[in-house]
Amino acid sequence: MRLNELGEFGLIERIRKATPKGQGVRLGIGDDAAWLECRNRSFLITSDVLIEGVHFNLKWSTFYDLGYKTLAVNLSDLAAMGGSPAYLVLSLGIPVDFKTKDIEEFYRGIRALASQSGVALVGGDTSASKRFFISAFLVGYAPHRPITRSGGKVGDDLYVTGTLGDSALGLELLKKKEESNEDKAAYLIARHRFPTARLKAGTFLAQEKLANAMIDVSDGLLQDLGHLCKASGIGAVVWQEALPLSSAYRSYAGRKGTLYALTGGEDYELLFCLRRRNRTRLEKIKKRLGVSITRIGKCVPSREAIKVLDGKGSPLSISVLGHDHFKSKL
Amino acid sequence: MRLNELGEFGLIERIRKATPKGQGVRLGIGDDAAWLECRNRSFLITSDVLIEGVHFNLKWSTFYDLGYKTLAVNLSDLAAMGGSPAYLVLSLGIPVDFKTKDIEEFYRGIRALASQSGVALVGGDTSASKRFFISAFLVGYAPHRPITRSGGKVGDDLYVTGTLGDSALGLELLKKKEESNEDKAAYLIARHRFPTARLKAGTFLAQEKLANAMIDVSDGLLQDLGHLCKASGIGAVVWQEALPLSSAYRSYAGRKGTLYALTGGEDYELLFCLRRRNRTRLEKIKKRLGVSITRIGKCVPSREAIKVLDGKGSPLSISVLGHDHFKSKL
Repeated sequence: MRLNELGEFGLIERIRKATPKGQGVRLGIGDDAAWLECRNRSFLITSDVLIEGVHFNLKWSTFYDLGYKTLAVNLSDLAAMGGSPAYLVLSLGIPVDFKTKDIEEFYRGIRALASQSGVALVGGDTSASKRFFISAFLVGYAPHRPITRSGGKVGDDLYVTGTLGDSALGLELLKKKEESNEDKAAYLIARHRFPTARLKAGTFLAQEKLANAMIDVSDGLLQDLGHLCKASGIGAVVWQEALPLSSAYRSYAGRKGTLYALTGGEDYELLFCLRRRNRTRLEKIKKRLGVSITRIGKCVPSREAIKVLDGKGSPLSISVLGHDHFKSKL
Repeated sequence: MRLNELGEFGLIERIRKATPKGQGVRLGIGDDAAWLECRNRSFLITSDVLIEGVHFNLKWSTFYDLGYKTLAVNLSDLAAMGGSPAYLVLSLGIPVDFKTKDIEEFYRGIRALASQSGVALVGGDTSASKRFFISAFLVGYAPHRPITRSGGKVGDDLYVTGTLGDSALGLELLKKKEESNEDKAAYLIARHRFPTARLKAGTFLAQEKLANAMIDVSDGLLQDLGHLCKASGIGAVVWQEALPLSSAYRSYAGRKGTLYALTGGEDYELLFCLRRRNRTRLEKIKKRLGVSITRIGKCVPSREAIKVLDGKGSPLSISVLGHDHFKSKL
């Protein structure tokens, strides 16, 4: 079988099944980060690969932006486990005709976010490569018990932080290269260029034991909800009218409606399940999360799969369920 | 300035200088591995990138071999610090038309060496890519104080484990694709396909405090000796006639003489400095290293640079000082 038939998640599943769990490994392949235990202390390790032409395009991304985003994406994975970041290791494949100052700009973007988030860049490898690629590896601590994808139960509430779809809409504006001083357009573009990992919300939810399953929304709400549901053995209902949309999104979405909020990707918000009995407690302390949260649906038995209901309670048909790198053409 | 003028090590130096050292970071960018300290325990992190067409060629490497070697290369970096490996994170960029069984073969190679060396594969990322590339991160412990590249002093002895040049000669035989049942050819090819990281020797030298500077020989003896000398602020003399050569190497080297032993690369042996006063102690306990060691030279003042002396004490001229990916054409 070729990889474009099996798909990325099929491949990961095969690798996971064939891999024995080692000593001290609380959670291996398949969540936002690996969870390791050493002398009663929990460590988290996450990794991401970004490839020119697959994950980014230098036509509308600066090197500074790319550096910033490389770290942000990994911070978001740790946030989704309730972790606290510490050390970054970065390997790059660089075309030989790149300018030194471009690579320095990339590292400037890394350092800008690293110093904000208390991360030290401690090493890596560089090599010549036909295409530019970035492979990042972030190590962090889990001050509280990590939140995995697999703890969701039927009957749980489904919450998401911030607003959805801004980044996908921002990318669309960037691609059009229309000069715009309009605040709302600038907001959407900034949400795409400089995503905010929800670290404070993640660690707070872990500390208060308020999320029993969590994932970050990187590939689009529905796709990531699918991962969470699969790991938890549940289904989900999402209410279209409850989706948190920014006013900028509402201004620019036009005929896209809620499509980008459901499937756009690169939101880097947190999606989590909450036991219904904790709803009141969460509402009371939600101001301490550092970001708004919205109840967007509920967890149902797995046989009901994942549905999005419109205002009248009718299911939408969503054909675009996020993005699989192996199943799309390069 | 373009990267092919600056070169790989120039780039790393620039990045290193611009990067602040974080909390708990004992040693950041620039050695075989980063050295981190947490609650009085030392951790080591190393990373390597392998790219099709730059570091390997699928014409003469199987997927199994590549998996095995990916881990071996990283184990060797930890060995060079006296470390003990624990967790592997692996990110792959995979062409979409690759077969699933090829990638499974790759992981089979990884697991074969992982189970031998007590390493757990705990995570990673996969993505579609035009060219196949592998980005590996290995986390380990340092049971004893790690050995860096920078502790060499004028007057130290210079030692190397095992034999040199076998791998480069093995690769040459592989490229020729001559079928050979001859034991010596098979030995050289196996040395290239399945390198042995000197983990036991590395941790033993760290435990006994017998190496005051160490590096693994991955880019060729002279280039890696150059890194060690630069980090230690010293020069070195290597005696050509002392270079440890296998009988297979002697049979097949022909007109290459000691060239591959000096510059061939992919040996994954350990090169280390020893205070002269410890020479007798090392000779007494060297059987416990699990591999032969050979005294190949001595450390001299930095103004004398690096020289290789022939049997008559005359310096050789070595123009090929190892390999810089950015300075060679792809």
